[in-house]
Parts: sequence; C-alpha cells; structure tokens
Amino acid sequence: MKRYLMTIEYVGTNYEGFQLQKGKTLKTVQGQIEMAMQQMFLQNIKVFASGRLDAGVHAKELKAHFDLETNILPERMITGINHFLPSDIAVQEITEVENNFHARYDVKQKTYEYKLYVSKYKHPLLEDKQMYLYEMPNIEKMKQAGKLFLGTHDFKAFMNKNSKVKSTVRTINSLEIEIKNNQITITICGNGFLYNMVRIIVGTLLEIGYNNMQQDEIVNMLNTGIRSRAKKIVEPKALTLLKVEY
Amino acid sequence: MKRYLMTIEYVGTNYEGFQLQKGKTLKTVQGQIEMAMQQMFLQNIKVFASGRLDAGVHAKELKAHFDLETNILPERMITGINHFLPSDIAVQEITEVENNFHARYDVKQKTYEYKLYVSKYKHPLLEDKQMYLYEMPNIEKMKQAGKLFLGTHDFKAFMNKNSKVKSTVRTINSLEIEIKNNQITITICGNGFLYNMVRIIVGTLLEIGYNNMQQDEIVNMLNTGIRSRAKKIVEPKALTLLKVEY
Repeated sequence: MKRYLMTIEYVGTNYEGFQLQKGKTLKTVQGQIEMAMQQMFLQNIKVFASGRLDAGVHAKELKAHFDLETNILPERMITGINHFLPSDIAVQEITEVENNFHARYDVKQKTYEYKLYVSKYKHPLLEDKQMYLYEMPNIEKMKQAGKLFLGTHDFKAFMNKNSKVKSTVRTINSLEIEIKNNQITITICGNGFLYNMVRIIVGTLLEIGYNNMQQDEIVNMLNTGIRSRAKKIVEPKALTLLKVEY
Repeated sequence: MKRYLMTIEYVGTNYEGFQLQKGKTLKTVQGQIEMAMQQMFLQNIKVFASGRLDAGVHAKELKAHFDLETNILPERMITGINHFLPSDIAVQEITEVENNFHARYDVKQKTYEYKLYVSKYKHPLLEDKQMYLYEMPNIEKMKQAGKLFLGTHDFKAFMNKNSKVKSTVRTINSLEIEIKNNQITITICGNGFLYNMVRIIVGTLLEIGYNNMQQDEIVNMLNTGIRSRAKKIVEPKALTLLKVEY
C-alpha cells in the first residue's frame, strides 16, 4: 500500500464544507472527491484532509492523503480524477509520501486569506468572493489590534460554541492587513484554527476598525476565554485557505 | 423630461446578453433593469444601452440612457434601483445629460478585456471568468499579429455571419497583450465592435500563438473580408466590457 498526498483547489460556494459528516447526507467536497476516485479506481478510497473547512469557504491548496495500491503515475491519476470531478473542484498535485505521514496531524502551518472591498455601491464582479463594506474602517487600528492575536493563546472565545475540541490553544504566526485600491486583504498564518475562528477574528477586527470595540476587550477575551458579547462572524464566501505547510 | 446616463456593472453568466430582443422572452440584463425601474418609479422606462453584449459576457462599466421626469436625486435613484436588482447586476452611477445625448450613437471608444490563464490543470478559482489554456502560446507572435488589427479596417471577416449591420468598418485604437504569472490579459480599444468581433479576434490571435495560422491570413481576411476558414471563437465568460467613453 502506498500513501499519497494530494493538493485540491475548489470553489466552496456550492458545498457544505470539505468534510463528510457521519449520518448526514450533505454535499461536501470530500464526498465529490471520493466519488470521483471511486469512478477512477473502481474501489472505495477514504481521503483524510488537512482539516475541516466551513461551508462556503474556498481552498487554493487544501491537502489530503489517501492509501492506494497502484502503478498508475500521479500525473495520470490527477487527469483521471479531475475528469470525474465537477468544474468547481480540481486536484492540482499528487505525490507519494511516507506511510506514517498524516495530512491532518502533521500540519505545521496553515494560511488563510480574507478579502473585503469598500465601495459606495456593491460591485457584482467582486461580490462572489469578497465581502462588501460601505465605509472604510480604520486600518491602522485594525493593524494594531491584529498584533494582539499573535503568539500562543487560548482562542476559546473565538470559536463557534457548538464546536467540540480537546484543546482550544492555538498559535498565530502572522496576521497582515493590506489595502490596495479600496480592497482589503487580511492574511492569517497559524498552526491551526478552531471552527469559525478566522471569520470571528476578522469580524472582531472590523468591530475595532469601526470603533464598536476597544482593544481591551480582545485582551480580555484572550485572557478569560469568555466571549463578552455577541461577536460578528463574517460571511464565508470571502475566505480562502491559501496553503497548508508540513 | 430629463435624460440620464447610467453606469451598470454586471456578471453576465446568468443572462442572454444585455439587450431585450423583439418577440423573444430571454432573460436579459436590460430586462432586469427595466423591471427594477418599473418597481422603483412605478412606470415603464425604456433603457438605451451603449451597445449589445453577447450572452455570458460581463460588464464593468456599461452605459445606458433613459428619460424620466423626476425630482429624485441620482444617488437615491441608484439605491432604489439596486434594491430591486438581483445581486449580479448593480447601477454604479447616474448623471443628468443633455437631451440630445445618446448612449449608443455618441460612443467614442469602448474597451474590452479578455483574460486567459495557462496551467497544467484547470483552476476552479479562476475558471468562472477566465479562459483555460493548457500550453503557453507564443506571446511575441500574438503581439506582432495584434498590430495588424490596429487602425480602420473592414472587419466583415471577424463578425458572426448572422449579424446584420449597415457597415462592417471599425477602427481599433489599441490592442495590448500582457502576461503576468501565467495569466494573459488582452485589452482592445476601438470605436465600436461587431457581433462576436472581440471573441473572434482573440481566437485568431491564439491560432497565431499556437502556430496554426500565419500573419498573412489575417492580412488577407482584413483585405478581402472573406473568412478563409472556420476561425475559433473563444468563450464569452472571459470577456468583460471595461468602459465606454463619450
């Protein structure tokens, strides 16, 4: 049996996230990939992803591993699997890895990107993958507040309440906010992210940028783990998993 | 009666082009706008666009004029009309113009942009508004061939055969081909374009770039007006009307 690592790009708009969920019959990216592999290899192959993705979120380079006994070259596997996939999902790379490699447990760093644009009126050409803002937030304040998230913290206050995980401690390595032609890009790198965490952080930064919250409150939430009041969670369509590093 | 000029941005994917067609019940952008204006102003208002757009083509700044007796400020008109429009169409600007101004007849220049990307595998995140190429064409040859279209020519050979127009003479002011990170952008400015003309020119340039055609053939088609053989017409999804100038 050989173990392979695959890189998957997809538009999340039409899917209930990446991962198949027990007892649920949701349309997921994992489901589409396993179906395509079933058609390609004529056997059931289970795919282990680098992690979950919220419904509607996109991925530029999601990683997943699978086991298969085959002599087919990776390049031909890609062409074959893509042939059976819908046009909003495509495998970009497949490489053989060590048998003890795990796409989820061996993750060193993940990078997410959140895109926003500021305009008097909505722009249909940007709307599908960017969040619309009517007023320019205070970017300087957002950058200052962004620094508070750097390092290792208990992010319990920045997680969907319904999530069940052993540890809510994560490390954020960088958080950058760039602005260009009224388009804002927030890029976050970390060793892992809790359910909805990126979208809650972006929502919190916007609260800061619009003067609806003070930096103290972020410090407080990071220290106590208590979500002091309902925090904005921004929409998933503007979020893309850019890359996963091992 | 006042005459107004409006700027419209839209994603063409779900529409059969801009213009309403006599006796046909197609879903057009014009139809959507006139419906929204009917709901906003409670009267039938006819909209005159800067020109037709093929089905599936997008517009960043399409122009259209309409006549209306009203005291509502343009800014409030925009908000009102947009409220009744689907999310893939939005008015960006409305300004009052002279009563003899005509959105179509007064056009001085139109700019179109065609986007392509080169990659071993299709990229879902680019697929919705770019054309996919497996191999890099010869950009230098395409640039050389592009120069042949500059100036005033009879573009009869570069038009959909079913089109009925008085004159097939048009002037192209510039044609630029830029390449960046395996993404190719072709920008064409001219005083007007025939039905399918931009898409046939881009298709012809690709034939040159892939060595399927020689420059002589372009010269020949421009001189004789005879389309010597079936020319590729590239897909509409990668074409955007960038701006219309008066």
